[in-house]
Amino acid sequence: MAVGADHRPALAPVPGVRLGTGAGGFKYTDHEDLVVMALAPGSRTAAVFTRNRLRAAPVLVAEEHLRAAAPRALVINSGNANASTGDAGMEVARESCRLAAELLEVEADAVLPFSTGVIGDPLPLAPFERALPVCGDRLREEPEAWWDAAAAIGTTDTRLKGASRTVTVDGTSVHVTGIAKGSGMIHPNMATMLAFVATDAPVQDVPLEAMLRKAVGESFNRISVDGDTSTNDALTLSATGQAGIAPIADVTDPRFGTVAEAVEAVCKDLALAIVRDGEGATKLLTVQVTGGADTAEAEAIASRIGCSPLVKTAAYATDPNWGRILMAAGAAAPEELDWSGVTLHIGEVCVVRGGVRAPDYTEEAGEAAMAPEEVTLHLDLGRGAGRAHLWTCDLSHEYVTINAEYRT
Amino acid sequence: MAVGADHRPALAPVPGVRLGTGAGGFKYTDHEDLVVMALAPGSRTAAVFTRNRLRAAPVLVAEEHLRAAAPRALVINSGNANASTGDAGMEVARESCRLAAELLEVEADAVLPFSTGVIGDPLPLAPFERALPVCGDRLREEPEAWWDAAAAIGTTDTRLKGASRTVTVDGTSVHVTGIAKGSGMIHPNMATMLAFVATDAPVQDVPLEAMLRKAVGESFNRISVDGDTSTNDALTLSATGQAGIAPIADVTDPRFGTVAEAVEAVCKDLALAIVRDGEGATKLLTVQVTGGADTAEAEAIASRIGCSPLVKTAAYATDPNWGRILMAAGAAAPEELDWSGVTLHIGEVCVVRGGVRAPDYTEEAGEAAMAPEEVTLHLDLGRGAGRAHLWTCDLSHEYVTINAEYRT
Repeated sequence: MAVGADHRPALAPVPGVRLGTGAGGFKYTDHEDLVVMALAPGSRTAAVFTRNRLRAAPVLVAEEHLRAAAPRALVINSGNANASTGDAGMEVARESCRLAAELLEVEADAVLPFSTGVIGDPLPLAPFERALPVCGDRLREEPEAWWDAAAAIGTTDTRLKGASRTVTVDGTSVHVTGIAKGSGMIHPNMATMLAFVATDAPVQDVPLEAMLRKAVGESFNRISVDGDTSTNDALTLSATGQAGIAPIADVTDPRFGTVAEAVEAVCKDLALAIVRDGEGATKLLTVQVTGGADTAEAEAIASRIGCSPLVKTAAYATDPNWGRILMAAGAAAPEELDWSGVTLHIGEVCVVRGGVRAPDYTEEAGEAAMAPEEVTLHLDLGRGAGRAHLWTCDLSHEYVTINAEYRT
Repeated sequence: MAVGADHRPALAPVPGVRLGTGAGGFKYTDHEDLVVMALAPGSRTAAVFTRNRLRAAPVLVAEEHLRAAAPRALVINSGNANASTGDAGMEVARESCRLAAELLEVEADAVLPFSTGVIGDPLPLAPFERALPVCGDRLREEPEAWWDAAAAIGTTDTRLKGASRTVTVDGTSVHVTGIAKGSGMIHPNMATMLAFVATDAPVQDVPLEAMLRKAVGESFNRISVDGDTSTNDALTLSATGQAGIAPIADVTDPRFGTVAEAVEAVCKDLALAIVRDGEGATKLLTVQVTGGADTAEAEAIASRIGCSPLVKTAAYATDPNWGRILMAAGAAAPEELDWSGVTLHIGEVCVVRGGVRAPDYTEEAGEAAMAPEEVTLHLDLGRGAGRAHLWTCDLSHEYVTINAEYRT
């Protein structure tokens, strides 16, 4: 299940980025499972990683390599997370970089490794040895290469996730294109999610990092599928600089905003694609909290509503069960909140006014408001300017089926 | 579904406590839905309530009445939580107390109201007017009256929950008996759960409060079904003093411990009965965390593991998916945790040693360890004396079914 139509937008190639895929046989036999993304000389890359304290070997190695050199390639496998695999896992992560580096004739620490899949199984090196040369042979810039890569990094995903923007900078077309994978273990601050975004804009390190941080704050850090966070999440933003415009050297450059907005739009598209493909999802819920004393208050309440299994199962049933929404808000609200100032809308329908059921509210209107595949729950706390939003999905039978059967 | 056999222990009557039930028609037509618990003159009552900031009208009124007078009666309805019902809800809660007070010839503020059920529907007074006289006519001390009351306070419960202990104090038998309801919206610090415990020991206010706090810390605050907390939770402990022994006036009285232990045992039985009857539960999971730097660290990690939908769906599938257990621990662990000191046992089977899969571990052994209806997940952090445990259940298709269909 997934929310909405399976839409595959047109992806713009990013000059300086070539992708190649292959079948290593890590776990899946029905799709490819290894990707090499090669970055042209001079490319810069920024990255953010999971905040889960159990960090997979490739996350540790990628951070180490990022500090050492400007990345020239990403190597991504699906089917095995290489997490909780100890020293042996670190060794395989390093060795996979070394093999890719040989192939591409770059330094080993210019390669960043990424893995996603089952935690705790030893990751063998053989699938890399087998498939890396294939990936190398097939490196190409075409949009189809991005889609092939999106397919190869997937695990429980039921849809391919890609997004693209083209903006004009200095009269020149600049491209931002990205792919992502993920549909479970999704929660703010990165989850079992990988996303790789690239642009041909010549963005230097400091503004590139700023661009990434801002984009992730408005996209991947706003989504939750099940409240669980993972050991392997990563998002990279690479800038190849091949667009043929002068370098963007800092955030005050007026062109920074143009590219940053495109990056943010691509990240938001990818993040929403992940929630729409949330495990077992039948509805996309936008939880919007306004009127909080401050942003933190609004965020805490939005998170609690968006993560409540009772709110999510009610959404699955198209049940405008507003009591559960207030209950979830109450679990995160401060003691001094005056409930008589609280208003709740489901879509356009005012359900709660003054903290109680709105006099003109009817169950029929509530059910109609809950019926669409994409529904906004808007809670106004009536006491300040703090606001936050979170995108999440419902909790269905299918979620249980997927997660009770994933590994075995 | 529920875990284990439907066991109804023998309940000891508590002299000084009479219970009567009736059918008001709040929502349910298949079972009674109103209970009056009458307490003999001289009884003392201590209570704890939900920490959810959205507090139902009966919670607010009960707290007010507790401050004003020693309770002589509890009035409990199921099917309607009288939460988010504004001033009208407060009025009905007060009026229900007044009606019960008239019937029992006590002061209105000597009656505590309790409600459980759907949030947000206006609570009518008519069912109280209809059924309170019936409850009054049927007041009796017999064990069957406790079981009838346990049935009448239930909502999505599939089992009746009662527990009892008899201990000898000063050569005299002292009884502690309690009932509870609850199977969803269950989380530490009280959830959509009501529990009423009584003893005939003559325990005075200060030691009674101490007894209750200690018991709840080791029982109801150790359980989680779905991480949601409710608007109505309450636990009362009443002491009628009719056992015919000298009053227990403070916590240093050597007899305090004897009664406190019995109270704790009854609360623990009731709490475990709630988890075993957790919505859709097929397994009871004991999450035990040891070796933490301190108790708070162990509690945070136990809570994260016990609330992870991925851990809970794996348990449903009898899948020894230890990677998910470590992942959940990692979401709550401090950055400085040395994973190479971490050990995980599922039942008696050592699954992870030194932070990686134990060399002698086999999937067959893991599956066998996950197979029983009651399984202990024991994570040792290997760095201190902090320990905590949490009882929870698995997350099944049936959980989704119950919560997607509860209201509509």
